Amino acid sequence: MKISIVGAGALGSSYGFKLIESGNDVTFIDGWSENVRRLNEDGLTVNDMGEVKNVKVKAYSLEDANEKADFVLVFTKSMQLESTLNKVKNIFHENTKILCLLNGLGHTDTLKKFFKPENIFMGVTVLTASMTGPASAAMSSHGKTEIQNIVAQGIDGAKQVVELINNSGLPSVYSEDILFSIWRKAALNGCLNSSCTILESNMYQLGQVPGCLDYFKQIVSEFAAVAKKIDNVDLDVEEIAKFIYGFTDKGFAGSVHHPSMYQDLIKNRRLTEIDFLNGYISKKGRELKIATPYCDLITFYVHGKEKIMGVE
Amino acid sequence: MKISIVGAGALGSSYGFKLIESGNDVTFIDGWSENVRRLNEDGLTVNDMGEVKNVKVKAYSLEDANEKADFVLVFTKSMQLESTLNKVKNIFHENTKILCLLNGLGHTDTLKKFFKPENIFMGVTVLTASMTGPASAAMSSHGKTEIQNIVAQGIDGAKQVVELINNSGLPSVYSEDILFSIWRKAALNGCLNSSCTILESNMYQLGQVPGCLDYFKQIVSEFAAVAKKIDNVDLDVEEIAKFIYGFTDKGFAGSVHHPSMYQDLIKNRRLTEIDFLNGYISKKGRELKIATPYCDLITFYVHGKEKIMGVE
Repeated sequence: MKISIVGAGALGSSYGFKLIESGNDVTFIDGWSENVRRLNEDGLTVNDMGEVKNVKVKAYSLEDANEKADFVLVFTKSMQLESTLNKVKNIFHENTKILCLLNGLGHTDTLKKFFKPENIFMGVTVLTASMTGPASAAMSSHGKTEIQNIVAQGIDGAKQVVELINNSGLPSVYSEDILFSIWRKAALNGCLNSSCTILESNMYQLGQVPGCLDYFKQIVSEFAAVAKKIDNVDLDVEEIAKFIYGFTDKGFAGSVHHPSMYQDLIKNRRLTEIDFLNGYISKKGRELKIATPYCDLITFYVHGKEKIMGVE
Repeated sequence: MKISIVGAGALGSSYGFKLIESGNDVTFIDGWSENVRRLNEDGLTVNDMGEVKNVKVKAYSLEDANEKADFVLVFTKSMQLESTLNKVKNIFHENTKILCLLNGLGHTDTLKKFFKPENIFMGVTVLTASMTGPASAAMSSHGKTEIQNIVAQGIDGAKQVVELINNSGLPSVYSEDILFSIWRKAALNGCLNSSCTILESNMYQLGQVPGCLDYFKQIVSEFAAVAKKIDNVDLDVEEIAKFIYGFTDKGFAGSVHHPSMYQDLIKNRRLTEIDFLNGYISKKGRELKIATPYCDLITFYVHGKEKIMGVE
């Protein structure tokens, strides 16, 4: 089976590295030319929780990718998913399977434009990794990957993917309710990521603002109303808001970190994934006649900051 | 008639200066000790639209003020109104009249704790001035002052105050509907001031954010709902939102300036007047069971920024 990793950033490099180590035929495809060049010349170097290893790899730019793939793992930024798949569509055949672990909402609709529903597998990962330079990544945890098919006929395929990832040394489980996990993670990011970007704060500082838990409840209730309508998913607003609030606690070591959207916009001056979090709720709310004032306003402010900071 | 100016900042110094020039007995009371010292030693210097003049004045700290006043003009920050009046209450007698030109909402309730309703006059001014140092101010325009009594018995007193201000050389008119003017100015500040503070932008940049006019309409509609309920004031949401949006136009020279709340928090790291603008709507909305999600969220963010920036 030929595997292609589309997007060789921190997560793509980590999953690809483990799949190579466990004996699979893996190709990397990436939009960053220096990354592609170094992968081909020097191989991929990964610091796997303290142990540094290097493996020889084959890498292509988006434009040059031509080897047909039986299985694709995609790791782009949300807003680049569709355009990237379009650029590499030559590598798909009619039975190519895809695993999407992206944060945010609305990706299944995009994937259906390229793949048969039974070949689409959605997942959520809590593996943590970062890029340390071109062709060089570091994994700080092997957090669990949950995976599920999106239609009943996909169940065997999904279980094979779970086995593949498990055999690579990364813990993976078949999920009976991946939609719940995706929505819960989106609500979490819709509370923490966007707020810390608007307020230019870390999660601990956000939690210290008077009324923060009530603010989270309002946001989660808007996610819950849309989740129920679109995917018949039940989000317990009180429980999830409290779960999210826990990430702002000083007792949680990560609370002093700035979430990824803050890193994107405030630190690296890149566009955010807001349209796949609060912006998705706002857009679907309009279509479904569900009031989503908090998500509307949050989306307005994040796009406003992008524009005012000249990031377009 | 003995006149006291409570709060000798840009506006207080300007009105006080014009009243002295036109022959009135005026005392200044201020919380900034260097300002008080310099006023007494060097007099008050005012650049009156290009013409620099100096007048001898009498000034007191809040604690030392003791001369009874027949008429008080108050120019504090909104959040200091009640505490300042409390500190200087020895200067009031049972028929002291007060003119309040402060921005924001809810001040009448505070004034009623110190003055008879027929002696309270509310107003709106568009005079523009700035402090250029202790005991030194500059007026860049003599914008109009509108004034009205808050109960029918106050009408004669209000007209006398209008005459007093007019005789000082500052254009002043008796308003038949000062509540409308106060609410409209509050809605304007509730759109421009708080948004430019959250986004750290000037008014032109705010106007460039996609969806800005609709955003203003939502905010103004919340002000309108509360204005109707509390003061039976009718704000035309469409018209006022468009009027406010005009301030973001490049054709309006002031559009590239940062509003006063931005100056307070982002530039000078001082607390904002948010609780007397969007925060007032949010609080009254809760009491009156009127949904005010935009004002709720705006208030949360401005207080959030105050806290995260360590301004308390």
